[in-house]
Amino acid sequence: MPAAKSVLTTKRGGLSAVGGVRAAGVACGLKKTGRPDLALVVSDHPATVAATFTLNRVQAAPVQVSKRRLKGGRFAAIVLNSGNANACTGRQGVRDAEETAAEAARVLGRPVGEVFVASTGVIGHPLDMNAVRAGVRDAARKLSAKGGAQAARAILTTDTTAKEIAVEFGVGRRRVAVGGMAKGSGMIAPHMATMLAVIATDAAVDAGALQRSLREAVAVSFNCITVDGDTSTNDMVLCFATGAAGAPRLRPDTPAFGVFRRALEQVCLTLAKMIARDGEGATKLAEVRIQGARSLREARRAAEAVATSPLVKTALFGQDINWGRVMAALGRSGARFDPERVDLFVDEVPVVRRGLGLGVRAEAAANRRLRRREFGLTAALHAGTATARLWTTDLSEAYIRINAGYRS
Amino acid sequence: MPAAKSVLTTKRGGLSAVGGVRAAGVACGLKKTGRPDLALVVSDHPATVAATFTLNRVQAAPVQVSKRRLKGGRFAAIVLNSGNANACTGRQGVRDAEETAAEAARVLGRPVGEVFVASTGVIGHPLDMNAVRAGVRDAARKLSAKGGAQAARAILTTDTTAKEIAVEFGVGRRRVAVGGMAKGSGMIAPHMATMLAVIATDAAVDAGALQRSLREAVAVSFNCITVDGDTSTNDMVLCFATGAAGAPRLRPDTPAFGVFRRALEQVCLTLAKMIARDGEGATKLAEVRIQGARSLREARRAAEAVATSPLVKTALFGQDINWGRVMAALGRSGARFDPERVDLFVDEVPVVRRGLGLGVRAEAAANRRLRRREFGLTAALHAGTATARLWTTDLSEAYIRINAGYRS
Repeated sequence: MPAAKSVLTTKRGGLSAVGGVRAAGVACGLKKTGRPDLALVVSDHPATVAATFTLNRVQAAPVQVSKRRLKGGRFAAIVLNSGNANACTGRQGVRDAEETAAEAARVLGRPVGEVFVASTGVIGHPLDMNAVRAGVRDAARKLSAKGGAQAARAILTTDTTAKEIAVEFGVGRRRVAVGGMAKGSGMIAPHMATMLAVIATDAAVDAGALQRSLREAVAVSFNCITVDGDTSTNDMVLCFATGAAGAPRLRPDTPAFGVFRRALEQVCLTLAKMIARDGEGATKLAEVRIQGARSLREARRAAEAVATSPLVKTALFGQDINWGRVMAALGRSGARFDPERVDLFVDEVPVVRRGLGLGVRAEAAANRRLRRREFGLTAALHAGTATARLWTTDLSEAYIRINAGYRS
Repeated sequence: MPAAKSVLTTKRGGLSAVGGVRAAGVACGLKKTGRPDLALVVSDHPATVAATFTLNRVQAAPVQVSKRRLKGGRFAAIVLNSGNANACTGRQGVRDAEETAAEAARVLGRPVGEVFVASTGVIGHPLDMNAVRAGVRDAARKLSAKGGAQAARAILTTDTTAKEIAVEFGVGRRRVAVGGMAKGSGMIAPHMATMLAVIATDAAVDAGALQRSLREAVAVSFNCITVDGDTSTNDMVLCFATGAAGAPRLRPDTPAFGVFRRALEQVCLTLAKMIARDGEGATKLAEVRIQGARSLREARRAAEAVATSPLVKTALFGQDINWGRVMAALGRSGARFDPERVDLFVDEVPVVRRGLGLGVRAEAAANRRLRRREFGLTAALHAGTATARLWTTDLSEAYIRINAGYRS
């Protein structure tokens, strides 16, 4: 819907583009490198909140604590730390996460029940609470309406770049913004690199409507780079609405709410693609598209099989379409189709038609597209009308180097 | 059952250890390197046959042809070629596979309906039938009771070593052998490297009993390195029984048949572990064991999640137990368990007890085990009584080098 899209304009910054938000990022010593490792994000107004959490059965302490907070539906602040996941840390871990929130509540003078926590980093080590408490106090002192970029840097682990985006649109005579930050640089599943995102809006939205909108936006963005259920112990996407823009409250089933949902989806999708593009050792970003599947479930399974195949991913790194690997991945996906009706494309360049390769010249043309940093990989199954779309990266030798050494 | 095992003794060779079998391996030009690329294996007696095939929806032409042959239940010969998978080759591919069998039937003077075919190599290119026909004739001339080792070499692709094994046991006053060869060097799933195996026995076994025994043996061997359903376009395990030992026909539900089943299982398991050990770029072989799962299905899913996790596999390459990755893999597997009851071990060295790490010294002791080439990785879930066992390898930079370049 291009007409609808055009009402959204990109804004500079991430969280700092949103009214009523202050943030800070500091180094408190959780990372041995001395890099920033603690972020604090605060809403100056009473805010509503929504969140989605990892589906992993092993849930880190901050996930357990923030899940409980969500029931209250109100948001004052979130403390995020990198360098230590506070996962597999037992009851002590939960006490440490609660104490982190309590320290922030104390220095900010806000209810502890409205302070969320998130962590990413090494699993199985207790948090250094002296460092965390000092970090929270330091961050509270440094809170600033321009602090979003510093917060975005303080949540990184193996990421090579900070990830921020903001968009805005009109509601009546007011301009409303949706902006956020994310971290994560794992490969597409099967993987376990933690993905964290904090998104804010200065629109006024009820918690229930916000939760539904966030769930829908996450389904077509973050969940399309990290396959459902295949999540780390710490994944969390949190969205809060400050209402600071002074625009009328957005009611579901109004045109303005539709624009808000698109804005939220665009912010989530942009952050998700930034994560995929920053995949560990990744040199390519491929959009895997399945067309003509018999059901949404089968389309999704086919896309996952292609997007997660190490042999397909190494072929993308090698810039050689090697389409037999794509056919074999489709064939083992569980999707029902006739192999002799399948067409494959790189961008719009056909390489397979009715299950047969189109020859050396077609492959050479496809391989020229694979030399680009971003391209599409489309399989038309001609078995139905369902489609799916996932993003994946190539698999390079650098991935092994990063993950054989890094402790996560 | 050590008492039962002791009746099996290992024999030198593979197929050549089995009475009534002749084999040959030749170079006919399908591989550009000039290496051996066509094998012929013949039973001099009327033989019964059993086989299991890939579950991939995209099935190579030789799989389609051999599946039809299996219905006849009789075996005279099999032609196997490497260098070209004859997959995604349409009707021409099926005609070529049929013609390969017909050429072998003609030169051997045996019924074409008893000649099987198997292929491995590049997908999507037509077979060079002039080369194949010449290769079949050349191999037929060179058939020898000692040709098993040459045949085993001629079916290799990215394998670094030929894979052969034979065992024998007594039936009445006769000695009976089970021996075979295999190729395959793919990583554990998700992968698509073709796995081929041909196994022979000079016992006399009905086709139905042979099929059930093979299916059971494959389930606990080859299917424990290449996860169910996650198979290439060409996978095939074929077993034929020549009866040449002159021993009485083995009847199901007799003690002798039980020994035969164990022999077949041992041959399959040994070949499967040879394939895993020869995994592309692999430097380690880990036996992943799940104990105390709520069901066999959940035990299997938990084992698969650990065994296929790139983060776990890179940690094994890095010789660092990094147990949080194992916990996270278990947690996303779908198996139901309480994370705070999980114990983890490397061999018999405990690293996690009741969900909590046992500290730096325990990890150091575990990491010393990871420096070995083979070790066990055990998770005790304490949620039930089901167990599962899979083999996996580490994920090294060499895997990427091999697969970014190789055309499969």
